[in-house]
Amino acid sequence: MRVSLPRKDLFDIPDGVLYLDGNSLGPLPRAVPARMAEAVGAEWGGRLIRGWNDAGWMAQPGRVGDTVARLIGAAPGSVTMGDTLSVKVYQTVAAALAMRPGRRVVLSDTGNFPTDLYMAEGLMETMDEGHTLRVVPPEDVAGAIDDTVAAVMLTEVDYRTGRRHDMAAITAAAHEAGAVTIWDLAHSAGAIPVDLAGSGCEFAVGCTYKYLNGGPGAPAFVYVRPDLIESVRPALAGWMGHAAPFAFERGYRPAPSIERMRVGTPPVLQMTALEAALTVWDGIDMADIRAASLALSERFIAEVEARCPALTLASPREGAGRGSQVSFAFEHGYAAMQALIDRGVIGDFRAPDLMRFAFTPLYLDEGDVIRSVDVLAEVLDGRLWDDPAYLSVKGVT
Amino acid sequence: MRVSLPRKDLFDIPDGVLYLDGNSLGPLPRAVPARMAEAVGAEWGGRLIRGWNDAGWMAQPGRVGDTVARLIGAAPGSVTMGDTLSVKVYQTVAAALAMRPGRRVVLSDTGNFPTDLYMAEGLMETMDEGHTLRVVPPEDVAGAIDDTVAAVMLTEVDYRTGRRHDMAAITAAAHEAGAVTIWDLAHSAGAIPVDLAGSGCEFAVGCTYKYLNGGPGAPAFVYVRPDLIESVRPALAGWMGHAAPFAFERGYRPAPSIERMRVGTPPVLQMTALEAALTVWDGIDMADIRAASLALSERFIAEVEARCPALTLASPREGAGRGSQVSFAFEHGYAAMQALIDRGVIGDFRAPDLMRFAFTPLYLDEGDVIRSVDVLAEVLDGRLWDDPAYLSVKGVT
Repeated sequence: MRVSLPRKDLFDIPDGVLYLDGNSLGPLPRAVPARMAEAVGAEWGGRLIRGWNDAGWMAQPGRVGDTVARLIGAAPGSVTMGDTLSVKVYQTVAAALAMRPGRRVVLSDTGNFPTDLYMAEGLMETMDEGHTLRVVPPEDVAGAIDDTVAAVMLTEVDYRTGRRHDMAAITAAAHEAGAVTIWDLAHSAGAIPVDLAGSGCEFAVGCTYKYLNGGPGAPAFVYVRPDLIESVRPALAGWMGHAAPFAFERGYRPAPSIERMRVGTPPVLQMTALEAALTVWDGIDMADIRAASLALSERFIAEVEARCPALTLASPREGAGRGSQVSFAFEHGYAAMQALIDRGVIGDFRAPDLMRFAFTPLYLDEGDVIRSVDVLAEVLDGRLWDDPAYLSVKGVT
Repeated sequence: MRVSLPRKDLFDIPDGVLYLDGNSLGPLPRAVPARMAEAVGAEWGGRLIRGWNDAGWMAQPGRVGDTVARLIGAAPGSVTMGDTLSVKVYQTVAAALAMRPGRRVVLSDTGNFPTDLYMAEGLMETMDEGHTLRVVPPEDVAGAIDDTVAAVMLTEVDYRTGRRHDMAAITAAAHEAGAVTIWDLAHSAGAIPVDLAGSGCEFAVGCTYKYLNGGPGAPAFVYVRPDLIESVRPALAGWMGHAAPFAFERGYRPAPSIERMRVGTPPVLQMTALEAALTVWDGIDMADIRAASLALSERFIAEVEARCPALTLASPREGAGRGSQVSFAFEHGYAAMQALIDRGVIGDFRAPDLMRFAFTPLYLDEGDVIRSVDVLAEVLDGRLWDDPAYLSVKGVT
């Protein structure tokens, strides 16, 4: 059954709030509270240690991984859940470097999220084998892939501007040059259609608290291309990735499945919130999400450009070049965003001057877009940033 | 205010259950469900992205770390929370090796939990600098510390037998030989008094879902000796450990506090369950816990030895040599434990033949100990393992 949009009834969004920050933290799906209460009371409280089997906790990372897999174009059995995106970046970069022992460069771009770069550098520092991180502007990535590059590590959609890489083309270029690819889908999963299997990329990682609405601190996901699963080296060789975790063997034997990318004990309660949250995607086709997101984004751009001339579009104008967010540059962007939030229109701000707005067709419609621009225009007319009293109260300096 | 034991009213344990498995997964503290419902509904649902500041999510790992610190003899500001114990082992072994660049051995023992060994080996494989893991019997550790040893990595209390290392003596021996120490307190925190500060050890790690009752998948803790915090290399250099996470700087600058051991986005909901669970320790003195635990353990040993001669004590007989669990060896231990669990006495089993029982004076008293031995004696008299029908139903082979 294909479901039409939006599905606002599935979310518990406070009255008077227009939520355009689903690219930071998705709102609460109504399915979560009751399921969480059950997991805490009946499962942890009632089943105690038996919950690992009775309540399906042990199988949960793979089960939830299969649900996420459908939304990112991956086969069942190729995704598992756990840890944080940072840890999964570390794990996949280590695995990628082990696959290309003769090469010493990890290539990334200035549009990547900083933690991805930090984690790769931390790994290379630990390895102490002369690896370097080469960071180029996004538009130079394809041209910078040469035969020194072991891995191309990129975030598909830029967290500041929403600019989107061409995953298929860059992956093909990487493979042409003999490099492995790692895609960070933090701003892709649940935002745009992703064709992981079709891209042929080796690894992907992502978080689930943004467009997947898994709640604050929801676990990360990791994808390994199915033909590589049995040979990939997990690097973080935790007992939950062991072929027989409860045999407590002296030596590590990685599981012969995606389970080998698991590390320690999974965050069962946190993952239960995510699992319940993911039910909002039942029957949803990502192509419908994309069409609706583009329509909302384009309407927003047109309205802002017509009514708020002080703001400058900082995202690609062409829909195909964007993810599911739109950013505008504005010199008083921080103060303006504070004022918007005070008025119930929640977006966010990224230094130095970007106002970010995410378009999430599960719980936003065209009327919301127009109302948000109404408030934005009002805020801009008010020029609160000229009022020292306002600035001191809001901590804007 | 010093509180007397037990505090059964603070826990929601099912009727008819005697829970002797608090060394695997602690039971549900009554404070958790309401707090969790508030975190999900009012904080995530109501505050949305603003929860990071309004609901104190950003400061939570340090705040909870300070609560744990008191229970393990550590100073405020020396413990933070997050990730899993496996990940924290990796991070601290990497940090320890960076402190002793000329040395190539990590020393551990056969009583360590396997994931600690796997994680250290995974790290050393990634480093590819000729490091080796030397694993000796527990009683040989002190004698095996020589000037090739960079780090001594041990679990204080053995997960199978409850045997306890002399933390102060081994740490002193390690320091004498110029080695760094890493103590895994998985079976210590909340079980026995720990004097981390007094021991002088450099690093400690532990989990919070056992004796600290944080719930399935509760986050780990990590301790760094205060004088080392500003120089220690976090290895997993995630953005939450950055001095200014939201400046999104290109380069990693570790926070000048224990926060540098943070990695990615913390599991807020999971940590909220833990934070609520830790309120049961308000006013508790670990010396009282220890005295009560020893009394319960000794009563249990005496009763079992008097009434269940088929079982052989597998834990040290001397209280000072044990943590807060008692293990008995029994050739039909697996089947006997299944039968016990069927009768509401929940302990657990570790291959090849160990029946484990944890004594947790917060929610167990002497009557519970005697009742559990009543049931154990009944089970042994029943000799269910001689009945093929029982064995096939229970999956005991």
